[in-house]
Amino acid sequence: MRELIVDLGDRSYPIYIGEGLLKGASSYLLKHGISKKSPLLIITDAQVASIHLQPFEAELQAAGFRTASAVVPNGESSKSLSMLESLVTKALEAGLDRKSAIVALGGGVVGDLAGFVAASYMRGIKFVQVPTTILAHDSSVGGKVAVNHPNAKNIIGAFHQPELVLYDLQTLQTLPPREVKAGLSEVVKHGLIWDERFVDWCEEHADKLLALDPDSLGYALFKGCSVKAEVVSRDERENGLRATLNLGHTIGHALEAVAGYNELLHGEAISIGMIGSAKLGLRYGASDEVYEVTKRVLAKCGLPVRLPEHFDTDVVMEAMMHDKKFMEGTMVFIVPTAIGKVEIKPDVPVQWVREIVDELKREGDQQ
Amino acid sequence: MRELIVDLGDRSYPIYIGEGLLKGASSYLLKHGISKKSPLLIITDAQVASIHLQPFEAELQAAGFRTASAVVPNGESSKSLSMLESLVTKALEAGLDRKSAIVALGGGVVGDLAGFVAASYMRGIKFVQVPTTILAHDSSVGGKVAVNHPNAKNIIGAFHQPELVLYDLQTLQTLPPREVKAGLSEVVKHGLIWDERFVDWCEEHADKLLALDPDSLGYALFKGCSVKAEVVSRDERENGLRATLNLGHTIGHALEAVAGYNELLHGEAISIGMIGSAKLGLRYGASDEVYEVTKRVLAKCGLPVRLPEHFDTDVVMEAMMHDKKFMEGTMVFIVPTAIGKVEIKPDVPVQWVREIVDELKREGDQQ
Ligand SMILES: NC(=O)c1ccc[n+]([C@@H]2O[C@H](COP(=O)([O-])OP(=O)(O)OC[C@H]3O[C@@H](n4cnc5c(N)ncnc54)[C@H](O)[C@@H]3O)[C@@H](O)[C@H]2O)c1
Ligand SMILES: NC(=O)c1ccc[n+]([C@@H]2O[C@H](COP(=O)([O-])OP(=O)(O)OC[C@H]3O[C@@H](n4cnc5c(N)ncnc54)[C@H](O)[C@@H]3O)[C@@H](O)[C@H]2O)c1
Ligand SMILES: [Zn+2]
Ligand SMILES: [Zn+2]
Repeated sequence: MRELIVDLGDRSYPIYIGEGLLKGASSYLLKHGISKKSPLLIITDAQVASIHLQPFEAELQAAGFRTASAVVPNGESSKSLSMLESLVTKALEAGLDRKSAIVALGGGVVGDLAGFVAASYMRGIKFVQVPTTILAHDSSVGGKVAVNHPNAKNIIGAFHQPELVLYDLQTLQTLPPREVKAGLSEVVKHGLIWDERFVDWCEEHADKLLALDPDSLGYALFKGCSVKAEVVSRDERENGLRATLNLGHTIGHALEAVAGYNELLHGEAISIGMIGSAKLGLRYGASDEVYEVTKRVLAKCGLPVRLPEHFDTDVVMEAMMHDKKFMEGTMVFIVPTAIGKVEIKPDVPVQWVREIVDELKREGDQQ
Repeated sequence: MRELIVDLGDRSYPIYIGEGLLKGASSYLLKHGISKKSPLLIITDAQVASIHLQPFEAELQAAGFRTASAVVPNGESSKSLSMLESLVTKALEAGLDRKSAIVALGGGVVGDLAGFVAASYMRGIKFVQVPTTILAHDSSVGGKVAVNHPNAKNIIGAFHQPELVLYDLQTLQTLPPREVKAGLSEVVKHGLIWDERFVDWCEEHADKLLALDPDSLGYALFKGCSVKAEVVSRDERENGLRATLNLGHTIGHALEAVAGYNELLHGEAISIGMIGSAKLGLRYGASDEVYEVTKRVLAKCGLPVRLPEHFDTDVVMEAMMHDKKFMEGTMVFIVPTAIGKVEIKPDVPVQWVREIVDELKREGDQQ
């Protein structure tokens, strides 16, 4: 079992990573101040519920917790204000009070949604993350929670830190292969912005990670969470450094939006986005190797590195204009300068970005 | 012009109260860090817009601010998640970015709604309050912002402090008489929980306040805001003291909910609620005078002190069970022990509350 503290002053919290942790979930909750006196609401999605909800809830109830559960449909479209409203209805029915907690059992979708319920129900109650995807190693650190607006992803949200994160590696064994790959995208991202050796490690262990080898997985999640925790604890409210976590996300979010949030998974979209950023790096004078390594490690993890032809460049650019990574009209990009190092470029010419979106559709042709 | 600082560490902010302040609104905004580089969104309601929006927006634009405005229907029903969604659409269309501000021009409804938009848009942007009702002296201090759920008032929200509050007494001259009275309810409440002399002052100046005499109004708002600021700065997150501000609100909120949020104004509902609390005070041994003075000053301000007969006691009690002033199943009430002094009673018998709701319908019969 690995343990990690996300250091945020009086909002610090631990992340536990290990096999079979959910069998002792109640003792972790009690240790971190979740009270049995007030009801808990577990929020999960249909697929996760069908596999993992029953034993989890049974363990909590056996320990004397009063629990209710709410199951939302799988997928990004559950991150909506109308789902927030239904979940608040559920919370009211279950009698949640100011000392209650919301428990997110699932991936990043459930984490973001349940986190925003916890942030806004009675203006904020306790929140526990039980991530069941690899990608959720990312969303479980930093307290960003949100739902989507039809025209913009994650635009309605809050900063709301959990009391604790319980990461049971066993739950990951049932994750569909495509989700495994997509999750590795953010793991690699954490290497790319912070830790060259970890990028090498990812390349070497890509096969083991894809095969869900528990040791490799445990280490990868621990490292991924550690990098994110380090960045977030230095800059909780995203005034500077934290923005580096958006590597690949400006293009990635636009691709997700254009594809209507279903053709591309988040991790796939940002994989393509990170290739775009690496190409931008070349224009700012980074060595070819930075681009080559980025592409190689993502490809080894089974991730797409090329933008499907049918994405219209104008439409993608338009979608980017709605993205929040613009400050006062200037286009901001996170650009790699070396493996494990990125810089914030506040003044990237829109024309360059357009050219790169075009190039992404031909990615690989020249090789 | 009166000025007051709400002392909340690095979230401290000033409240300016005076006649004609809006004529110089832009200089106040600039003084408090609102940037001209990013667009502003003014949120207001139809009635306030028809009287006060045009000159306000013109002044800001003349000073070089880029403004957009959104006009919501009057009334409590605008405090909804669907309105939040429309306003976020508006904010996206207007190009609001992370350095933008939301300006609330209106009463407590607009303040709470616009404040929650500001709290959640991009996980929080700047917020300016321009209150135009007397009641809003209350909502402009303390940073509580929220929308309603069909089953519970203010249940979805956040704590989000404004950058500044600009209270122009001239805007109050157009306030309908019933709103004037309802607003005085919270003014009196601030006296009842904190300041006996101010309660006396209110009784003496009730006529002048009802006639909107600017001097009296300025002093009343300054005192009301000061009491609230004092309480809030000692207990920002409502762990204890801040709960005293809920005097009259447990019953009051239930009455509003039962009446479908339109028969009774908030201030009217809590006026009846404060009579209920004073009656509870009698049961805990407070002197008759506490109850008599409470009733006299509220009546002098033209406020209802009796619950209309048609309110069903069972339905009112049921509505209270959904209210958030319950902790772990125990019923919590704020109870006056003297004029200007209240106590938090954590264990009020539900039966007493039921009896008092019944008595409130006969209030005055015995006299
Ligand atoms: N808050 C943040 O900082 C942050 C960071 C990154 C991503 N995100 C958000 O995370 C979301 C993506 O998260 P995700 O990729 O985890 O998606 P997800 O939550 O939708 O999970 C992906 C799919 O896998 C299924 N699933 C989850 N766990 C499973 C398991 N153990 N076994 C079988 N099936 C399982 C789910 O039902 C779902 O269909 C996006 O909405 C993104 O915006 C947030
Ligand atoms: N956040 C807090 O701490 C807090 C505290 C108290 C109350 N509140 C909230 O405040 C709300 C009630 O506020 P309110 O009483 O100001 O209601 P309101 O905002 O609905 O205003 C009352 C009416 O007066 C009109 N009006 C406002 N200003 C006017 C003016 N200058 N001239 C003419 N008409 C004008 C409005 O159009 C509206 O019809 C409730 O939703 C309550 O929950 C919040
Ligand atoms: Zn991401
Ligand atoms: Zn009130």
